[in-house]
Amino acid sequence: MSNQTKTVISAAVNSQRFNHFITALIIFNSILIGLETYPSIYLPNKNVFFILDLIILFIFTIEIILKIFVDGKHFFKNGWNIFDFSIIAGSIILYNTPFVGVLRIFRVLRALRTITSVPSLRRIVSALFMAIPTIGSVILLMFIIFYVYAVIGTAFFSEIEPEYFGSLELTFITLFQIFTLESWASGVFRPIFAEIQWSWLYFVSFIIIATFIMINLIVGEIVNNAQKISEEVEKDTSEIKDDTVEIKE
Amino acid sequence: MSNQTKTVISAAVNSQRFNHFITALIIFNSILIGLETYPSIYLPNKNVFFILDLIILFIFTIEIILKIFVDGKHFFKNGWNIFDFSIIAGSIILYNTPFVGVLRIFRVLRALRTITSVPSLRRIVSALFMAIPTIGSVILLMFIIFYVYAVIGTAFFSEIEPEYFGSLELTFITLFQIFTLESWASGVFRPIFAEIQWSWLYFVSFIIIATFIMINLIVGEIVNNAQKISEEVEKDTSEIKDDTVEIKE
Amino acid sequence: MSNQTKTVISAAVNSQRFNHFITALIIFNSILIGLETYPSIYLPNKNVFFILDLIILFIFTIEIILKIFVDGKHFFKNGWNIFDFSIIAGSIILYNTPFVGVLRIFRVLRALRTITSVPSLRRIVSALFMAIPTIGSVILLMFIIFYVYAVIGTAFFSEIEPEYFGSLELTFITLFQIFTLESWASGVFRPIFAEIQWSWLYFVSFIIIATFIMINLIVGEIVNNAQKISEEVEKDTSEIKDDTVEIKE
Amino acid sequence: MSNQTKTVISAAVNSQRFNHFITALIIFNSILIGLETYPSIYLPNKNVFFILDLIILFIFTIEIILKIFVDGKHFFKNGWNIFDFSIIAGSIILYNTPFVGVLRIFRVLRALRTITSVPSLRRIVSALFMAIPTIGSVILLMFIIFYVYAVIGTAFFSEIEPEYFGSLELTFITLFQIFTLESWASGVFRPIFAEIQWSWLYFVSFIIIATFIMINLIVGEIVNNAQKISEEVEKDTSEIKDDTVEIKE
Repeated sequence: MSNQTKTVISAAVNSQRFNHFITALIIFNSILIGLETYPSIYLPNKNVFFILDLIILFIFTIEIILKIFVDGKHFFKNGWNIFDFSIIAGSIILYNTPFVGVLRIFRVLRALRTITSVPSLRRIVSALFMAIPTIGSVILLMFIIFYVYAVIGTAFFSEIEPEYFGSLELTFITLFQIFTLESWASGVFRPIFAEIQWSWLYFVSFIIIATFIMINLIVGEIVNNAQKISEEVEKDTSEIKDDTVEIKE
Repeated sequence: MSNQTKTVISAAVNSQRFNHFITALIIFNSILIGLETYPSIYLPNKNVFFILDLIILFIFTIEIILKIFVDGKHFFKNGWNIFDFSIIAGSIILYNTPFVGVLRIFRVLRALRTITSVPSLRRIVSALFMAIPTIGSVILLMFIIFYVYAVIGTAFFSEIEPEYFGSLELTFITLFQIFTLESWASGVFRPIFAEIQWSWLYFVSFIIIATFIMINLIVGEIVNNAQKISEEVEKDTSEIKDDTVEIKE
Repeated sequence: MSNQTKTVISAAVNSQRFNHFITALIIFNSILIGLETYPSIYLPNKNVFFILDLIILFIFTIEIILKIFVDGKHFFKNGWNIFDFSIIAGSIILYNTPFVGVLRIFRVLRALRTITSVPSLRRIVSALFMAIPTIGSVILLMFIIFYVYAVIGTAFFSEIEPEYFGSLELTFITLFQIFTLESWASGVFRPIFAEIQWSWLYFVSFIIIATFIMINLIVGEIVNNAQKISEEVEKDTSEIKDDTVEIKE
Repeated sequence: MSNQTKTVISAAVNSQRFNHFITALIIFNSILIGLETYPSIYLPNKNVFFILDLIILFIFTIEIILKIFVDGKHFFKNGWNIFDFSIIAGSIILYNTPFVGVLRIFRVLRALRTITSVPSLRRIVSALFMAIPTIGSVILLMFIIFYVYAVIGTAFFSEIEPEYFGSLELTFITLFQIFTLESWASGVFRPIFAEIQWSWLYFVSFIIIATFIMINLIVGEIVNNAQKISEEVEKDTSEIKDDTVEIKE
């Protein structure tokens, strides 16, 4: 294919109009998926929904192919492109397989592509992801706390409340529920407390430690951000200081 | 009408005394509405309440008419005026119609006019509204997250818990309930978890994502406000820098 | 009484030792009150508890009288003194009256005097009280919101859930419960939602508005405090600016 | 033992490789403890688990002994060393005693040694502990508030809800539950409210006071940290001020 064709396609793919068209298609796709949840709308028009979905998937596939053709290797260096690619590839691979449930979820996830195609949303999500590395060690610490409490909980309470503490996995979910403070006392703690006297220590200490870490995480994030702002001011002041020292001399 | 009359009316309408009178009437109106909820007080005095309400509505109508007369076109450029106008207009239009329920709500909303007539409250509410545009894209992002989870939830859980996930609308309300962490586990999650193994992923991921966005929204608001303060300091420092550079030269 | 006696008493009342003695007595009193809640300890020693309480109250009364004697009119200008005085006066006035319940509460409140006698606690509580005027108008705004929702709730839901919305007072308590998000859906909202379709609007809007105001109140408090810190820096910078301008000239 | 041996051992104990080996052993130990909670894995391999645990405990004991030998008295001046020592000592002392439950917990707590051996985790936990003294007096204040409400609650509600307010200890746990807002209304308050009219004052006031203190604690922590940042800027500015004043002269 000549270089000229590539330039034309590149201009087309990167044009505002093309982006608007894809965004509109994503929104239309999302509405379709929503309508499908209403049996009174979906059941009599099953075929229409099926064909529309096929057409949309076809256009999305072409979009991705064009973008890969234009950007070459650079395409897969962008996290957003990988995200788009995975969702579409997943939909295609699972087509006509027995994993209908997973395919269904892939089709719904296409609605998330709105984030990819609207710049202001993309910026917010990027900002959110940027906060994750700073809280990385805190998450590791939280995991250790959860693990210790999960082992103790499973060892001591599994016979009294097997639905909550029956296995390590169940206890992890229960600890998450306790962490959100949902029915921790009325549902989980009180029945155990009736049989094991010291159990209040387990629950109260877990809530205090987990909440304390959580609050400090948020305080840290606020202070971190405030520091970044402050550093700009400080850079200015240190330059002034150099100036005044120079003048004195 | 002569220009002089207009000046006199304008002075009267904008006077402290007139404002105090209207504020007092709004408070009196609010108390009346509260008393009406006590059948033992309301039922034997139905006529008194009816007549008082009619008189108050009449005075409010005249107040609005006078203000429109004085301010002309400018009246509708102020959000607070539009708010006052809508509440009174709604009350008048719905008078003697079968929409008794809606009329009742309009009458209660008149109590909100206290905010319009007390400057310090007006300032707070204006400040609250000013925070909305900054969080606009976050709300859009939140809506997309809610939508994706609503479609998945309705598709997979509607048969197990029709009262929570029966339709897209119901699922939206249920997701809001889960977002507030109210009975998310004991009421909504546990019965589904008993039948669908992977459902914990749905609930836990939704809570983590939604809470994470919410916390970052609050952190962002705090940092934004801190930045505004910092910028004033920075303006000063940059002026000092210019001075010192000039002096050096 | 000679002036000299007053000086001696003043020195004694304001001495470290006297303060430590009173603090110890307050703590001893608090422990006694706690022990009284155990019938197995209290019932066989009823007389001992009664006599000890009488002695403690007697000493506290003398303490207050001495302090009033020393400080004169100035005594009642200090909020902490008024607090101490009210608690002791209340205990004495209600002695041997049939209001046993109220007297009991007054006796328990004496434990709060620890705050008065420990300086670091007094400082924290003073700081907490200082935050109240700044949030004054927000509390007024919150009251208006609560009132409007209380009237609407009582008018429309009182017949479906009389235990929650039966009267304006009950609805106020219920709205406080909803504000804390406790069982708002599972306990209060869902049964009403089963009968009144639009009720979700009432609950969801109330939660969003109330939480939004609450969050902004906290954000405001943080930013306010940050501003105070920033102002000190700014004062310094503006002085530097004056200096540099002078130097330039 | 010659000084040379000590140097060799010291170099070995403080080497990266030794630390990595101990960290790996801690993680392996943690996994073992987790696997023990699965009866299908544990019961047929009881002996393997027993022997592995013995070996690990033996290695940990030697590690601690070596470290004490190397550091001498300085060993017990480090909080982390004391933590490690207590956990291992506890495991050894309780070996072959009837306190199987406590031994079990000690064995699980060994997983917490990960924090000791991973520097980034150690730093976070140190930072968390550093926040405690600043909030010391607030915790004391909170305790007084809890105590006063506990005595009142036990005195007045113990007969209506003995499972919640039966004794001072039970009421303390119940107040903690109310503090976390879990089922405070639906579970604890409503049944009492049905019998004692004024009880809403007890619950609402407790929630408002406790939450108010909690929020102010968090706000204080944020502002405190912001102040530390601001002080660095201020130090710079004050130096500049000194410079400009000098220049002027």
